[in-house]
Amino acid sequence: MPSYKAPLRDMRFLLNEVFDFPAHYRALANGGEATPDMVEAILGECARLCEEVIAPLYHSGDEEGCHLENGEVRTPKGFKEAYDAYVAGGWQGLSHPVEYGGQGLPMSLGALKQEMLGTANWPFSMYPGLSLGAMNTLMQHGTEEQKQTYLVPLTEGRWGGTMCLTEPQCGTDLGQVKTRAQANPDGSYALTGTKIFISSGEHDLTENIVHIVLARLPDAPKGTRGISLFIVPKFLPADGGPGPRNGVSCGALEKKMGIKASSTCVMNFDGATGFLIGPPNKGLECMFTFMNSARIGTAIQGVATAELAYQGALAYARERRSMRALSGTKEPGSVADPLMVHGDVRRMLLTQKAVAEGGRALVYLATQYADRMIEGILHKDERQYAHWDDKLGFLTPILKGCLTELGLESANLGMQVFGGHGYIREHGMEQIVRDARIATLYEGTTGIQALDLLGRKVLLMTRGKAVRDFTGQIARFAVDLLKTQPAMRGRALVLLKLAAEWNWLTLRIALRARKDRDLVSTASHDFLMYSGYAALAYAWALQEHAARQRLRDGGAESTDFYRAKLATSDFYFARLLPRAKGHAAAMLKPTGSVMGLASEHFVFE
Amino acid sequence: MPSYKAPLRDMRFLLNEVFDFPAHYRALANGGEATPDMVEAILGECARLCEEVIAPLYHSGDEEGCHLENGEVRTPKGFKEAYDAYVAGGWQGLSHPVEYGGQGLPMSLGALKQEMLGTANWPFSMYPGLSLGAMNTLMQHGTEEQKQTYLVPLTEGRWGGTMCLTEPQCGTDLGQVKTRAQANPDGSYALTGTKIFISSGEHDLTENIVHIVLARLPDAPKGTRGISLFIVPKFLPADGGPGPRNGVSCGALEKKMGIKASSTCVMNFDGATGFLIGPPNKGLECMFTFMNSARIGTAIQGVATAELAYQGALAYARERRSMRALSGTKEPGSVADPLMVHGDVRRMLLTQKAVAEGGRALVYLATQYADRMIEGILHKDERQYAHWDDKLGFLTPILKGCLTELGLESANLGMQVFGGHGYIREHGMEQIVRDARIATLYEGTTGIQALDLLGRKVLLMTRGKAVRDFTGQIARFAVDLLKTQPAMRGRALVLLKLAAEWNWLTLRIALRARKDRDLVSTASHDFLMYSGYAALAYAWALQEHAARQRLRDGGAESTDFYRAKLATSDFYFARLLPRAKGHAAAMLKPTGSVMGLASEHFVFE
Repeated sequence: MPSYKAPLRDMRFLLNEVFDFPAHYRALANGGEATPDMVEAILGECARLCEEVIAPLYHSGDEEGCHLENGEVRTPKGFKEAYDAYVAGGWQGLSHPVEYGGQGLPMSLGALKQEMLGTANWPFSMYPGLSLGAMNTLMQHGTEEQKQTYLVPLTEGRWGGTMCLTEPQCGTDLGQVKTRAQANPDGSYALTGTKIFISSGEHDLTENIVHIVLARLPDAPKGTRGISLFIVPKFLPADGGPGPRNGVSCGALEKKMGIKASSTCVMNFDGATGFLIGPPNKGLECMFTFMNSARIGTAIQGVATAELAYQGALAYARERRSMRALSGTKEPGSVADPLMVHGDVRRMLLTQKAVAEGGRALVYLATQYADRMIEGILHKDERQYAHWDDKLGFLTPILKGCLTELGLESANLGMQVFGGHGYIREHGMEQIVRDARIATLYEGTTGIQALDLLGRKVLLMTRGKAVRDFTGQIARFAVDLLKTQPAMRGRALVLLKLAAEWNWLTLRIALRARKDRDLVSTASHDFLMYSGYAALAYAWALQEHAARQRLRDGGAESTDFYRAKLATSDFYFARLLPRAKGHAAAMLKPTGSVMGLASEHFVFE
Repeated sequence: MPSYKAPLRDMRFLLNEVFDFPAHYRALANGGEATPDMVEAILGECARLCEEVIAPLYHSGDEEGCHLENGEVRTPKGFKEAYDAYVAGGWQGLSHPVEYGGQGLPMSLGALKQEMLGTANWPFSMYPGLSLGAMNTLMQHGTEEQKQTYLVPLTEGRWGGTMCLTEPQCGTDLGQVKTRAQANPDGSYALTGTKIFISSGEHDLTENIVHIVLARLPDAPKGTRGISLFIVPKFLPADGGPGPRNGVSCGALEKKMGIKASSTCVMNFDGATGFLIGPPNKGLECMFTFMNSARIGTAIQGVATAELAYQGALAYARERRSMRALSGTKEPGSVADPLMVHGDVRRMLLTQKAVAEGGRALVYLATQYADRMIEGILHKDERQYAHWDDKLGFLTPILKGCLTELGLESANLGMQVFGGHGYIREHGMEQIVRDARIATLYEGTTGIQALDLLGRKVLLMTRGKAVRDFTGQIARFAVDLLKTQPAMRGRALVLLKLAAEWNWLTLRIALRARKDRDLVSTASHDFLMYSGYAALAYAWALQEHAARQRLRDGGAESTDFYRAKLATSDFYFARLLPRAKGHAAAMLKPTGSVMGLASEHFVFE
């Protein structure tokens, strides 16, 4: 059973030596409090909470699951106590405004917290995680009264929150939403309809639950332009606390493959009282404001999955003995050599390590963008907001799409290192796979991320500029490497080639898609994965650069950590980046190879 | 929930139009009975049994699982009745000798049966499937008395069988086996030890269970050369039936990720009476005689998984509506277009289809080799046996390793097509993933298959001849295509290039591995996957050739089936084969990228 140990050394390396977060925070409007001492305190305290209180509930939470009894959901044993400890530490409001009960720190610190919480126990982390969605929506679109009423208890963690989008007939295609909202005489609305797949829709961790609900007003236009957003609390607020029970209830818990300790609810709205948030019929726009941040939250699941599976597999590979090394017996005194001597076991471990550490680097880069974007919101600086939101928006589908896929692969490799024992529940490795499997499905499937990236962010919104900008950044870094890091000449050339190829592929697709619109959908998956491997190459070169810098400058207490970074970068460029070749070759193939077969000819009897 | 429909049209295409099984059977010593009428009857009857009786128990078997009560294992509701129907049909002895109660048909027909049974309900199919292992061992190594006593009731299906290899401390590394066998005065042995992961070790389907057990004699040499093979029946035979209870019992059932309806037992041998089978200390050789066939049996799981996931996903993609086609609305009268219009959904479906149908073709090719190998055994023709066993032995790790990995990918794509609904148990798609996940672990992990292929079959045993022979066969076919099929000129050139590259890669590895032995283990996984994609390219070209032949010759009732084959072949060459590029590039990278990092530097605190 893997026991979580927060990878603080790696986190500090990224924060201080690769991305210079201290300078980033000094330059940030709300970064003043995020001093190195504060960051260090947060890392230490959060790691302790996650390792000692939250991680031990990971496996037992899966075994016990959630239970629905008389409309109430009982979370697994220990969850309530752990959540209380989390709330008592003030963790929920870490990066939300002080005036609404938070600590006002930058969003990137909230992401560090989410990463540790999520690696320790992803299903547990979904309860506070879903609240963040509701909090962000209220913060951006709520009235001052709504903020005082709902945002404050949510930020304090006393109340929980959800996002109610999906209905039985539609998930991705929200234009099909049917839930109705009728105006009440008092200005509130009566909501009627059924929502499914509502994470944290009902549970026993908080005294109230605030649902943010997509629904249609009676006179709303059809499709996506007729959807409004509502606040529907489980208990109607009264005197600053929860008052009478509202007409919203959990009709059933879904039986799922994994994340069993997270309640996934069918929510019935039976004339439930709701309050409009944001302008009528603009619900989708409001809902999507923080979509990029939410998707980065799910990208973190990829990193978390790879990290936890890596920790579990590494411990086993060091301990379990089987066969002898091909290059000759390594431990003649033992009955067999440890798994660590075998090339293929190392390939699996290094894949997990390269994904976890490379993915973590990309997430931290993205959270720096998010900090700047939020600064734009705080300063009401539309240009700044748009600039950083665009940069974040380009990375988001790449990270969500690619890191969750690679996280799932890493989880499967964790089982694989265990051999047949990986398939047995008590070892805990198969749970990681089951829990990771949701990540490529929710918050927009991988296919939706791929379309969002290629169709929307690259072609429609920026006509390729998004790729030009990011590859420009990579190319500038590579040119700098050529000038200053002779040892990284090879890497720099690979990065320059990738930057050129990425642009060339984008241009080819753009030109051909004018005549053959289907190309956007047939190329999208390979374009997404190619982009992911290219972005990870950048992330690894950044890390290698920082490590080489430290090794050159000397003065490090131990050089082992930095040398391990070079070795892992080596592995990434040698063994994982070559996959990009296959994706590059596949994406330009004629659309006929995918679209040619008539639907009725996919099977014959 | 996917409901299984045997893909008879595709099976007939392979049997009659691609591989000419009628001619194959006419030339085969035990193929006389396998007339086209007989084959057709087998297909029809087996399909009916699988679709109507066995498939309906797939999901309920997973929900209920197996239960251990007072040492007895209760299989899920309906399993006993289904097994009885299977036995009543004479299916267990289909391809085993008439003199021991079988029908004496070629092994390839047994594989067809296994494919249908396994696609309908893999966990169910493991009960008769494990018996085959015991039957084959007895057939090849048992005395006439042992055959009469054990093989006959096994062939009739009245008794079940198991293979007891794994112990807590060792799975792959069987040299570590500790179970002891002491000689009894009557010539039998008393076995003491613990075996784990014993599929079908205990159940309620048969009146007796015959365990084939690896154990050590008291004076046995250490390691793999000191292991002997024993027959240990649950009930000692008496008067042709089960007699007194033997000292072997099920200590526990493993809780697993999937295949929950298949009992996976901890088996305790407490001085259990056993009978030596084969020569002392030659147990591993005896056990491995039919290893290639057993591994082809697991390769079938890859095909079965891809097929069932494809059937489920296709039905959903045709029915579920979401968004509009990028190239413009296809069904304006409906609220949205069906999923089938989306390029990325088609990519997923066609991947499953290409894996299922391409993998099926490779399996059928392998079973023709197996038929010839077995004919060599029947004729006691050592040269014939060795020739076909070598050909089969080369394909075996490729098929077991690669098709189970691609089967798992296909199962995951099946969930992915369902979006969030794929994660919910009632839809049945996540069960396919959980059940498929074992396939890359048991019967030798993918890593072991990779080492078996590159280290043993290619380098050590044949010095590359195995690759030269198989690529020679591909090249001859490609040259023939160039002469006779102008429309396949492009494919022929791709095949010739693959054949050359495959040899070149092998040669490069062989040369470099002389100095750097680790290269065999660092290259093995990529070599395996490369080989799989190359073999699938051959399988798809064979199918395309046969389809084009039919389209050119005319006279087919409908051309749609053949055109669908061309489209799927197109997809394979355009979208899946490019992955081989990444594997080709990765396998030759220096071993340092994998072996360089010291074990103690994989993580830092």
